[in-house]
Order: sequence, then C-alpha cells, then structure tokens
Amino acid sequence: MAKALASIVSAGCSVFGKREGLSSRELFVEAFHEALERCPDLDPRRDIKASFIGHVYQGYEKQGHLAVALADWAGLTPIPSTRIENACASSTVALRVAVASIAAGFYDIVLVGGAEKLTTLSGIESQDLANTFLDFPTEQWNGISFPSVFAMVARAHMHKYGTTERQMAQVAVKNLSHGIMNPKAAMRKELSIEDIMDSRVISSPIKLQECTMLTDGACCLIITRADLAESFTSIPVDIIGMGQSHEKIGLAGRGDLAIPMAAVRAATEAYQMAGVGPEQIEIAEVHDCFTIGEILAYEALGFCEFGDGGKLLEEGATYKDGRIPVNTDGGLKAKGHPVGATGAAQIYEIYLQLTEQAGERQLKNVDIGLAHNIGGNLSSCTVTIMKRRR
Amino acid sequence: MAKALASIVSAGCSVFGKREGLSSRELFVEAFHEALERCPDLDPRRDIKASFIGHVYQGYEKQGHLAVALADWAGLTPIPSTRIENACASSTVALRVAVASIAAGFYDIVLVGGAEKLTTLSGIESQDLANTFLDFPTEQWNGISFPSVFAMVARAHMHKYGTTERQMAQVAVKNLSHGIMNPKAAMRKELSIEDIMDSRVISSPIKLQECTMLTDGACCLIITRADLAESFTSIPVDIIGMGQSHEKIGLAGRGDLAIPMAAVRAATEAYQMAGVGPEQIEIAEVHDCFTIGEILAYEALGFCEFGDGGKLLEEGATYKDGRIPVNTDGGLKAKGHPVGATGAAQIYEIYLQLTEQAGERQLKNVDIGLAHNIGGNLSSCTVTIMKRRR
Repeated sequence: MAKALASIVSAGCSVFGKREGLSSRELFVEAFHEALERCPDLDPRRDIKASFIGHVYQGYEKQGHLAVALADWAGLTPIPSTRIENACASSTVALRVAVASIAAGFYDIVLVGGAEKLTTLSGIESQDLANTFLDFPTEQWNGISFPSVFAMVARAHMHKYGTTERQMAQVAVKNLSHGIMNPKAAMRKELSIEDIMDSRVISSPIKLQECTMLTDGACCLIITRADLAESFTSIPVDIIGMGQSHEKIGLAGRGDLAIPMAAVRAATEAYQMAGVGPEQIEIAEVHDCFTIGEILAYEALGFCEFGDGGKLLEEGATYKDGRIPVNTDGGLKAKGHPVGATGAAQIYEIYLQLTEQAGERQLKNVDIGLAHNIGGNLSSCTVTIMKRRR
Repeated sequence: MAKALASIVSAGCSVFGKREGLSSRELFVEAFHEALERCPDLDPRRDIKASFIGHVYQGYEKQGHLAVALADWAGLTPIPSTRIENACASSTVALRVAVASIAAGFYDIVLVGGAEKLTTLSGIESQDLANTFLDFPTEQWNGISFPSVFAMVARAHMHKYGTTERQMAQVAVKNLSHGIMNPKAAMRKELSIEDIMDSRVISSPIKLQECTMLTDGACCLIITRADLAESFTSIPVDIIGMGQSHEKIGLAGRGDLAIPMAAVRAATEAYQMAGVGPEQIEIAEVHDCFTIGEILAYEALGFCEFGDGGKLLEEGATYKDGRIPVNTDGGLKAKGHPVGATGAAQIYEIYLQLTEQAGERQLKNVDIGLAHNIGGNLSSCTVTIMKRRR
C-alpha cells in the first residue's frame, strides 16, 4: 500500500439545512470550532499555515474573495488563503491542491474546507445559479437545466443496461434511511420507494425526491504532513490516493453518457496511487446529487460491473450493514447540498467513520474509505482514498 | 541564490480591451495559441498535465466551472483543471498552487492562466461586481466602493508622508508612456500630469485617469519542472521566489492604512525564498489598479523607504530607462484589467523582458524580475521573483 500523501487530524462540520440569519462566515466558524474542539493540541494561530476553501455561488452573498474573509473570521489572517471553484467538486479539488502544497514543502499544516449559503434563494434563482455550471452555448442556451442533464444520463443508463426507475428511487430510500442517524442532516425523514416514485416528475425519469436540496452549510478539515499527524491525534487518517479528472464541458461533446469517464479516470488514478483496489474499500461516500449519480458511481468506482449498479443496491450491498456501505451519513439526499462544502463533508464522514466518531451510524472495523465527488454535469470528478493508521 | 521552484518555458497573451463577440473561451485560446507558437517542442495534448485558471467574475458570462470549459476549448480535456478566485490576484495565486503541484511531483508540465470578459457590463454592473471583493458588512453595506477604498488609502499616505496628488498622477503618466510601446494594451495614448489632474474626480483624491479600465482579456503561461525546461526553450525563466499574504477582509480591521502589510509580508517571503534583495531586482510589474497602488508597491517591495514612493517616481527611477523600471508594458493603467488574467499578464511581461522578446520596450541585460499582484482592497498580495537562466 502507498505511503500517506498527508493526514487528516481533525474535522468539523456545521449543521446543514436552512440556517436562518447565518452567512457562510458564521457557518464556517461553526465547523472550524468543532475541528478545534476535536484537536486540543492544535493552536490554530501558531500551527495553521494556509487555507484552501471551496466555494461556488460567489456573488449570491455579495462576497467574492471568500477565502480571505473566512480566514479572517477564523482568526487566521494573514496565512495564504485560496478559493477554489470547480462546481460541486470545489472542496475536494481544494483538498488536492492543499495536499500538493504540503507535499511540496510549502506548509506543514493547512485548513481545507468549504462554505455556502443558499436557502434564501428562490427556486428560480437557485436553478439559474446551478445552471451556470453547465455549458453555456450547448446547454444553458437551449434551456437545459441540471435535472435535465441527469435525466438524459439516467435515460442512457436505462436504455443501455435496463436500470429501472425503482432502482434509482431506492438510492434515495437507502440514503434517507441512513440520514435519520445523522444529526447534521437537513432531511431526517424516511421515505418508501412509493413515496419517491409518486413525487412529482422534475425531468423524466427524475422525480422531486430523487433530487438533493441546496442548503446552507460549511465543513472543514485539518490536514498535516503525515509525519506530524501523531502530534495532534491518536488516530490519523492518511490520504493515500487522489484522482481528479474531467470530461468536455458539454454533454454534446462526449461519448457514451452511461459511463461517467471523469469518475472512471479519477478512480483509476486514486486506486493506483493508493495501491488498493475497489475490493479493499470498506466505506464510501459518493455524489448522489440525483439518484442516478450514485448508481453511476458504484460502477465507475468498480464496486460492481458496468450496468450492475441498480442490482448492487437491490441486493443491499451498499446499505449501512452491507458489503460496501455507501453514504452512511445520508448522502447529499439527506444531508443537503451546500455546494462548496459538499466534498469536504464527504471526507468528514469518512474521517468520522475511520476514527470511530460516527455515533449511531458508526460502522465496525473500517480502515479504508473512499470519497467520490462530482462537479457540474459530471464534467469534474475527484476520488480520495483514506486509510486509518493503526 | 535559491534554486528554481519551477520554470516558465512559454507564455501567451490576448490583446486586452473591448473584444467584441469573443468570450473568455476564445480569448483564452488566443493566448494559448501564442504560447504554443513560442514553444514548438511542446505537444500540448501529450505534455500538459494540469491547468490552473484564475477567473473572477463568475456568473457574468453565465459560465461557472470555467477551468473545465477552458481546458476543453484548449483541447486539453481530461487533465485536472482547477479554477482559483482570489479577486484581482487570482492568476498569480493559481501560479502558486501550480508551482506547488509541480514541486510535489503531481505534474511535470502545467498550464497556468486567467481569462475575463467584462466590457459588455454597464458601469453600474461592473461596480457592483467589483464591490463583491470588498467586505460586505463593513464596506459594501455602507456604500464603500473600490475607488473609495483606494481613496482612503491614498489620503492616509498623503497625511502620513506628504505624498502629493501630482505624484500619484505621474504614475499614470509614466505607465501610459510605456503602454504606447505595447501592441496588446487597451489604452495606447499618452497623457500629461495636467490631463490626469483635470480628469473628473471619482473619489477624492482619485481622478478618472488614475483608475484602470476593466477589459476583456486572457493570458497563459507554460510552467515546467526546472530540470525539464531546457527541453522546451533555450532561455528558461526560473521562478525562484514566491510570497502570498493577506490582511483582514475589511479596512476597518487593519492598522496603518499607509502600509500595505499583505504586500510587505509577501515580498519578505519571496525575497527570502529567492535569496535576493530588492536591490537585485532589475524589472518589476506592480499592481497599479489605482495610481496610489503603485506608490504603495514601491515601498512594500523595498525599492525605496516607506514614504518615499512618490519621490522615487519623480526622480525617474521607475521609468523604462530608470534604475528599476516598473510596468514597462504600461501596467494596468495602459493594458487594462481583465481581472482574472491580470496577474498572469504581469508574469508574461517579465517573461518577455527576461527572454528578450519585449519588442520596442525591451530592456537591456535584465536577468531578475519581480511581479506584485494585489487582490481586492489590498487584502491579498502575491509577489513572484523570476530569474533568466544563462
């Protein structure tokens, strides 16, 4: 197995949902406080040397330059503070550049995170903002929205592999059944397959309850040089593999829509770097912004053959007590989707599980976890593989 | 002197200005083509392994996820492509994370750049967008705009040091006198001190002709591992020092406004890393978004004592034929300010000068250059020191 690129020594996450009266700044500080409480040996002003922040909906809060604002509110000025935007994959791309900066010797200890404030947007406004992550000339201009992109992909998958609408609905059922154990999730309510199937059609075959909600939220991670990690925690979580890949910005430029090539390539890179294969992954967080996204992820990550994602779910393999538990925190479906914070929150769940801090939803004996984070219309993907040190 | 962190082997820049009918994508490709023409031994699809893109005014072109879109239009999909936003310092912060990624061994050859499309905005719209880089609660909310921030800083400098309005006006005079030799500059016209002084007051003491123009434009740099550089060019430009620092997001949280501490700290970091001092810098690009910015830069960079910036200019030291030529390409004043591309364009000018490709404005025998790039209300600053290999 590969050596650690860097290590996670603490993490914090705000409650996700409608956080009335709180901006990205307060939410980020809420997450940061949790990370500090977990890590009493860290003196943030002495130890943290840089921050890398995922943030997407710039302009909505009338606050660009957000990495600098968040570092200020976290009491960390003047450390180098950098904002990354790669649509919904922003904070895991931030993690990648942070890890590179540590590996390069620029810094020993850094803060990685994300923050977003979205719930005071109207439905139309949030659609408009989300749509800017699609290709302008071939998609936005033609009235194609996020649900319709994923509907096209779902149709392609149904056509090629026979994936069913009930299988897709079951993704939401599973994730909501996990989410009721997550006190930070925005939607803590179980629904049946029928509830999902009967919810109104947004863009056929995608129904309302197959979409995630855009919420407010923030998350942060404390990342150190691997050899320093044990000064701050008794259970470091080593980052042993990372992948980042892309597809052409518009769906029209791609090949087979049923195979998410950015994810396939990112997974290949991450597995090779980590020196592990899919059969060694004991827990995964995957990007279920729409239910089809999770089925695509199973296949791209090698948890099953291409086309067998729906069956893997039906067999129960990805439930909390299954062979390869996926989205034990409820996924984007239950947690909600504060876009810039979403990727970091996936890493947060893996960190909690590997360090036995996941409370009611804690898995037993998990050492290796993976996070899969999609950006835009599947045009960005990162895969991160982590291993608990023993 | 320090060893190279990475090397610049080629660069390209679009014409800056009102580029009717062209979006960030076409402008970026225009810059990329120039970089490729300069570097015939580079096969972009074979050699370039990642891209890091500075871009600021997301949403204006209705295109988030811009790094992915630009990589696509440059024919580089699926390489990891990352967008950085640190206000007007975006593309030099992108350069920093790119260099770290090379130093970490993630990639050998990367593309760094920036792009922006701004000239179809109305005056009010461009003010609104620019203002999002100020602190929302203490600045935007109170009606403080970019010119008024720099006016406060100018007043503090005048009060503390006796800097005069004529000295500030002379910054624009000098830079415009350089800009007429730059075929890519948006404003190629000389003005006298009286022309500047007589232009209308925007926010006293700042007059219209002391402001830069928001323009369209794109710029890119090809960066390699230092030991590979000579495969691609006979004159590599080594990056030998980099600094990035910040101040609190709002002016209200800072101390003495006449001393730009982010720049002072970034310069200190860069000089230490490079193992050179200000007296060894033979050419500099500094961030003259408003004329006072250039005077502050002289002092923060150690080209003169604090308070002597106006005198340094009056003595002629920073003219093209002076002791330390500053903004030989015309600076932001003449070139214009396509925000996400601005920092990269500063590096581009240093690259041209150090490699003897600066045409009519070429300096003689310059080996070491520096670029100083400010973000927001002086809350971000990067300093980059480069040395021509001989």
